[in-house]
Amino acid sequence: MSLDEATHKPHDRLNAYLADDMERVNGLIRERMASEHAPRIPEVTAHLVEAGGKRLRPMLTLAAARMCGYGGPYHVHLAATVEFIHTATLLHDDVVDESAQRRGRPTANLLWDNKSSVLVGDYLFARSFQLMVETGSLRVLDILANASATIAEGEVLQLTAARDLATDEHIYLQVVRGKTAALFSAATEAGGVIAGAPEAQVAALRTYGDALGIAFQIVDDLLDYGGSSAAIGKNVGDDFRERKLTLPVIRAVAKADAGERAFWTRTIEKGDQRDGDLEEAMRLLARHGAMEATRAEALDWVAKAKAALDALPAHDLRDMLADLADYVVARVR
Amino acid sequence: MSLDEATHKPHDRLNAYLADDMERVNGLIRERMASEHAPRIPEVTAHLVEAGGKRLRPMLTLAAARMCGYGGPYHVHLAATVEFIHTATLLHDDVVDESAQRRGRPTANLLWDNKSSVLVGDYLFARSFQLMVETGSLRVLDILANASATIAEGEVLQLTAARDLATDEHIYLQVVRGKTAALFSAATEAGGVIAGAPEAQVAALRTYGDALGIAFQIVDDLLDYGGSSAAIGKNVGDDFRERKLTLPVIRAVAKADAGERAFWTRTIEKGDQRDGDLEEAMRLLARHGAMEATRAEALDWVAKAKAALDALPAHDLRDMLADLADYVVARVR
Repeated sequence: MSLDEATHKPHDRLNAYLADDMERVNGLIRERMASEHAPRIPEVTAHLVEAGGKRLRPMLTLAAARMCGYGGPYHVHLAATVEFIHTATLLHDDVVDESAQRRGRPTANLLWDNKSSVLVGDYLFARSFQLMVETGSLRVLDILANASATIAEGEVLQLTAARDLATDEHIYLQVVRGKTAALFSAATEAGGVIAGAPEAQVAALRTYGDALGIAFQIVDDLLDYGGSSAAIGKNVGDDFRERKLTLPVIRAVAKADAGERAFWTRTIEKGDQRDGDLEEAMRLLARHGAMEATRAEALDWVAKAKAALDALPAHDLRDMLADLADYVVARVR
Repeated sequence: MSLDEATHKPHDRLNAYLADDMERVNGLIRERMASEHAPRIPEVTAHLVEAGGKRLRPMLTLAAARMCGYGGPYHVHLAATVEFIHTATLLHDDVVDESAQRRGRPTANLLWDNKSSVLVGDYLFARSFQLMVETGSLRVLDILANASATIAEGEVLQLTAARDLATDEHIYLQVVRGKTAALFSAATEAGGVIAGAPEAQVAALRTYGDALGIAFQIVDDLLDYGGSSAAIGKNVGDDFRERKLTLPVIRAVAKADAGERAFWTRTIEKGDQRDGDLEEAMRLLARHGAMEATRAEALDWVAKAKAALDALPAHDLRDMLADLADYVVARVR
């Protein structure tokens, strides 16, 4: 099986199975990202939305709702909601990270300005809020409000934890939940709740989304030290240059000798980076098996995600979600 | 009557009348602005929250709910909600405006960094969202979701409208609703809704908040060309330096001769500002009666606000809200 088959199949199968729903989601996104009064808004959002993200989060919501037998209209609102929240956080992230590239294209803060990215992000967040209110489900609102708080808290935590060699795996996990897993698990849980699924299934969906999100982010952090710019839509070494203490580095720092520790202190804590430092960092990660250890950690989370699916009824979508969990780690060789 | 008596009395009376409720609001704000994991959050929020803003918006919510006979606990949640939304927008505004001073103190983006302001703003918005979900009122959520969208849309609109001499009073009003009036009217309307007030009273509260907010912002824009730094907690001429086309300038531009128009084009549209330009702008505003015309406009909105109160039952709080509307314009001589 080629990498392409391994990586694209589950996502494409989900996309095909949910094609009608996804079309409704895309229509709703286009409708709600518009603004009568402020033309800058659709300019910025179209740039992001049409960049063709994988729409992974809305698909998770649709899949969860359908798998639990939902026949109403509101899974579409929730799917658009999670994509809006995701897009809003991307806009704010790019300001915070001073990124120049996102999904292989220049970022909005580069094309327009930081102001537009901050305010259009706020707008998308407000629009997502309107969409979820339309579902009329207070429980769904509660789930998404809590996810929003976890996301923001994780982002702030990353600001202080990133450049601190004392950051351990426990703190890393909190950051990862904020960056990725909180929205994944809200996406799947909300799908189950809107479908009126039994509590055990709702809990399983939440666990699946959480574990999938953590695996996804760990792999993303791994690829930052080993993927190609084309494959990950950002530049290799971005995390190193931004001095983010991700899992591969945490593992390498734990095994560092005095000289290596001085290297990490200089490059990550003090931010004094020179030519060849990224290559040296990658050599240290390889020397201590940090890449393999990180990949093993991601595989553990994939196993957790798949195990959670056992509590859900047999369904084609359930199989696709299991395959999707495998796909997440298949991105890394 | 001294200026002090005219300006502080209604606010102080409201504060005294609502003292128990306000204490609960302040307690809830302190509790919810904390974060277990990210110590940067309470640092930033404490800086803002303890700077001693007037807490005008939460008082509006409390007053509206009490005036309509509410005896439950959730007006306190809603009051904290609107203060959190307000604080979140201040944090993002300061990033967008690159401000150095807020409420007479250095801004958070200056003390920490823009990243912290963006992300802590997001956190406060998420926390406000959790607070309103706790009220269990979908209608209140709808009101606040719509207000959030209007606020964000108005802010983006201001980005493009600000430096464009074609901006007229109609666009200005949309910006003002976004900047100020949308949250004022959501604050009063939500108070009425949580109290279960009749529709006519809810509508009157919304109209009062909207008109009060517009008057408040017009006066703020007026003071920017004539108040003292101590009185307004920011620097005179900030709007001019930031090239914001506010009502006084819109009025002066409408009456400008060719030479004056060239002045506005150079300073506002092109941003080419020199020593003495602010003073020249203020001379032009005075020459065309733009300050008086703007003040008259604010008085019209005050009259609208007070007229709306007629639909509400006789109540000490109703009288204080009427006085509060007068106070807004009494700030300008």
